[in-house]
Amino acid sequence: MIRVTRRYRFSASHRLHAAAFSDAENRALYGKCNNPYGHGHDYVLEVSVRGPVDRVSGRAVDLDALDRLVRGHVLEPFDHRDLNTEVPAFAGVVPTTENLAVEIRSRLARKWSGAFPDAWPKLERIRIQETKRNTFELHQ
Amino acid sequence: MIRVTRRYRFSASHRLHAAAFSDAENRALYGKCNNPYGHGHDYVLEVSVRGPVDRVSGRAVDLDALDRLVRGHVLEPFDHRDLNTEVPAFAGVVPTTENLAVEIRSRLARKWSGAFPDAWPKLERIRIQETKRNTFELHQ
Amino acid sequence: MIRVTRRYRFSASHRLHAAAFSDAENRALYGKCNNPYGHGHDYVLEVSVRGPVDRVSGRAVDLDALDRLVRGHVLEPFDHRDLNTEVPAFAGVVPTTENLAVEIRSRLARKWSGAFPDAWPKLERIRIQETKRNTFELHQ
Amino acid sequence: MIRVTRRYRFSASHRLHAAAFSDAENRALYGKCNNPYGHGHDYVLEVSVRGPVDRVSGRAVDLDALDRLVRGHVLEPFDHRDLNTEVPAFAGVVPTTENLAVEIRSRLARKWSGAFPDAWPKLERIRIQETKRNTFELHQ
Amino acid sequence: MIRVTRRYRFSASHRLHAAAFSDAENRALYGKCNNPYGHGHDYVLEVSVRGPVDRVSGRAVDLDALDRLVRGHVLEPFDHRDLNTEVPAFAGVVPTTENLAVEIRSRLARKWSGAFPDAWPKLERIRIQETKRNTFELHQ
Amino acid sequence: MIRVTRRYRFSASHRLHAAAFSDAENRALYGKCNNPYGHGHDYVLEVSVRGPVDRVSGRAVDLDALDRLVRGHVLEPFDHRDLNTEVPAFAGVVPTTENLAVEIRSRLARKWSGAFPDAWPKLERIRIQETKRNTFELHQ
Repeated sequence: MIRVTRRYRFSASHRLHAAAFSDAENRALYGKCNNPYGHGHDYVLEVSVRGPVDRVSGRAVDLDALDRLVRGHVLEPFDHRDLNTEVPAFAGVVPTTENLAVEIRSRLARKWSGAFPDAWPKLERIRIQETKRNTFELHQ
Repeated sequence: MIRVTRRYRFSASHRLHAAAFSDAENRALYGKCNNPYGHGHDYVLEVSVRGPVDRVSGRAVDLDALDRLVRGHVLEPFDHRDLNTEVPAFAGVVPTTENLAVEIRSRLARKWSGAFPDAWPKLERIRIQETKRNTFELHQ
Repeated sequence: MIRVTRRYRFSASHRLHAAAFSDAENRALYGKCNNPYGHGHDYVLEVSVRGPVDRVSGRAVDLDALDRLVRGHVLEPFDHRDLNTEVPAFAGVVPTTENLAVEIRSRLARKWSGAFPDAWPKLERIRIQETKRNTFELHQ
Repeated sequence: MIRVTRRYRFSASHRLHAAAFSDAENRALYGKCNNPYGHGHDYVLEVSVRGPVDRVSGRAVDLDALDRLVRGHVLEPFDHRDLNTEVPAFAGVVPTTENLAVEIRSRLARKWSGAFPDAWPKLERIRIQETKRNTFELHQ
Repeated sequence: MIRVTRRYRFSASHRLHAAAFSDAENRALYGKCNNPYGHGHDYVLEVSVRGPVDRVSGRAVDLDALDRLVRGHVLEPFDHRDLNTEVPAFAGVVPTTENLAVEIRSRLARKWSGAFPDAWPKLERIRIQETKRNTFELHQ
Repeated sequence: MIRVTRRYRFSASHRLHAAAFSDAENRALYGKCNNPYGHGHDYVLEVSVRGPVDRVSGRAVDLDALDRLVRGHVLEPFDHRDLNTEVPAFAGVVPTTENLAVEIRSRLARKWSGAFPDAWPKLERIRIQETKRNTFELHQ
C-alpha cells in the first residue's frame, strides 16, 4: 500500500460574512476577511490517494484520470472565480477554507467511483494551503 | 554600498477588464482574468534600498521606518482589498500586476523623503511576485 | 472533523552539552553543536489542532486565540533568546530540538483549556523544523 | 515518543517501459516518461524514524548512523546514476517512483538492525518527492 | 520600463564527457556527472523580458506568445529527453548547464522577432537553476 | 560571459550591541537583537562569479575550487559559531548582516587570486539571506 499525493493550484476571491451575525459581529469574527469587496488567495490543493502498486506497470494510480477528475470538478469551477458568487455551494455557506475543504472532498467523493471504478485507489486525504501560514486537512 | 531587500505579503482580489475594448476583446486579451466576478492572489512584494553601511551601527537602513512606510502606504490600503473597487488609482486603470508595480513605486517614491530625510538610503527596486510563475520588477 | 495547522517562526541560539558526559564525549556526541559559544537557528513551528467545523461561522478554531497562546507562551519567551541561559526549562536539560518540542507541547497543553475552554478544538500535533534537513513531530 | 524526519537529495535518470506491454501500450501508459533515451529527476527523500527521547542526551536518533545507512545503501548506489541500467533491482521492474519507494524501504529495513541494534529508533516512513507535483509515501 | 520574468520547468537527463579528454581526465573534471549511463535533473528556467507597460491593456508582454515560443523551441525538444542523444546542438558540445543556457538563449533570440515583431518587449535574461545549489544566468 | 551562483548555508549566533551607544540606545536601535544572551540564524549565502564558458569543458568556474575557498574561509570559521566571540573581525564591529556581508566579501576577495590564478572567473556578488524577510547584497 502506498500513498500518492498530487499538488494543484487555483486562485480565487472570497468574502467571509455570515448572514446569521450582525455587521459588527462579522467584523469581530472575520476581521479583514469580512471586507465587503472581497479579497483573494492562491490556494494550493493536495489530493492524496491510497492503493497497491500494480506489479506490471509499477503504478498505484492513473494520474491522468485523477487530473481529469480534479480539473473538471474543482479547478475549472473554482479557479479565477469569486467563490461567494460563482460557486452555488457557497450561496448560504461562508467560504472559509474549512468549508472549501469540505466542499472539495464532497465533490471528489461523489465522482470518485466514476473515475476509479476498481476497488483501488481510494481517496484518502484533502489538504488545502490558504497561505503559507494556514493549512487545512480532511481525511476521507 | 549595499543593497537591502525586505519582503512583504498581501492578499487582494482584482478583475482585468479594459473599458476601451469590447467584451470579446477583453476575454481574448485577459482570458480567465477577465471573469466578471474577479479572482485573487497572494502577492509577494520585495522592496530594495541602497545605501552605505553606517560605521557605528552597522546598519544601512532603518527597517522600522521602511516597515512603517510600506505598511501605511501599500499594505494597509491593498491587503484584503478588492483592487478595482477600493484603490482609487485603479478606477480607470486596469489592475494588472504591471500597473500594480507602477502604483506601488509611485506611492513609495512620493513618501520616501518624509520617511528617509537623509541622502541615503535610496529606493532602488520594487519586485512583485503575482504567482510563482510571474514576477515583475521596476527600478527607481 | 478537520485538522488546522498554523505556522510560526522564531530565532534562538543554543549549545548542546550534557553535564553527565565528559568534554570528549560531548564533542563526539554533538559535534559542532557542542561549540562552547553556542550557535543559532531559525526554527519553524507548526501547531496542529483538530475540531469540527462550526456550522454558522465555518471556522474550526479561533486563530486569534491560538496566536495569543503561542505568542505568549512560546514565541515571546523563546524568540531572539539563548535557550540554555534564558529558558528555565533548559537549566538542566539539553536544548536539543527533541527537548524543545517536548517543552513546547507541555507549555501549550498546560494552558490549552484556559485558551480553549470548550471540548473543541484539541491540540493534536507539534512540529518543529530545525533546518530544512531535520524535522521533529510530537502528537498530543 | 517523537518522530524525527531527515531529508536527503539525489539525482538520477530513468525510463518507464514495461516489457509486458507493446510499444504503443507503453507510450499510452507512461507518456513522455516512456521516451527511449530516458530523462531525469532530482528526488527528495525523507526518512522518518520514531523513538523515545533519551533522558541524558536529549536525542531520539543517532543522525550520523542514519546518514551512514542512507548514504551507503541509497544515495551512493542511486545518486547520479541511471536507475534502469545501474540498479540491479530495476533490471525487470519498472523504475516508477512507487517502485523506487518500495526498493528504498526494503534496503533500509534489511540493514536497519545492523545500524540500530537497540529496540529504538524504528524506521517509520519513507517519502519521496519526484517533482513538486508528485509525492509518494510508504509506512513501515 | 518593466522587467517581467516567467518561470518554466523541464526534466532531462545528460552525461558530462568531453571527447577531447581522456577517461581519467573526464572523471577528474566532471566527477559523478561523468557516469557513463547519465543522470538527470529538474531544471527551472526563467525567461526575463523588458518593455514599456501598454497604457490601455496594462500589459508589457503577451505571455501567451512567450509561452508558445518557449514551449515550442525549448520545452518540447528538451523536456523528458536525454540531452546528449536527442538535442543535436549537444552532439559535439558537452551539455553542462552553462552550455544549456547558451543554447536556450540562442534558440529564443533566433525566433524572437517572429514571436514579437514590434520593438518591444526585448529578451533580457535567461536563468537556469540546475539544482537549488547552482544557478546560471546569461544576459542578452 | 555567464554568471554562476552557488548557494551555501551556515548557522551562527550573534548579538547586536554597539559599544558607542548607551544600553537604552542599543535597545531602541536593535530591539530584540540586542538581547544580551544573543540569538541565532540560519544564513543562506550565495556567491556569484562571472566568466566565459570554456569551449572544451563547457564550464565557467571550477566549483570544487570555489567550494574549497568558501568552506575554508567562510563556512568553517562561521558555521555553528558565535560571531561576536569567535570571529576576530567582530571584536569591535557589530555583527549585523550588513557587516557580515562586508566581511565575507573581503575574505573571498583577499584569497581569490590564490584559488583562481587566471583572469577568469571573477568574484561578482555576495548575497546573504538572514531570514526569508531580509536579504543583503554586495557587488565586488
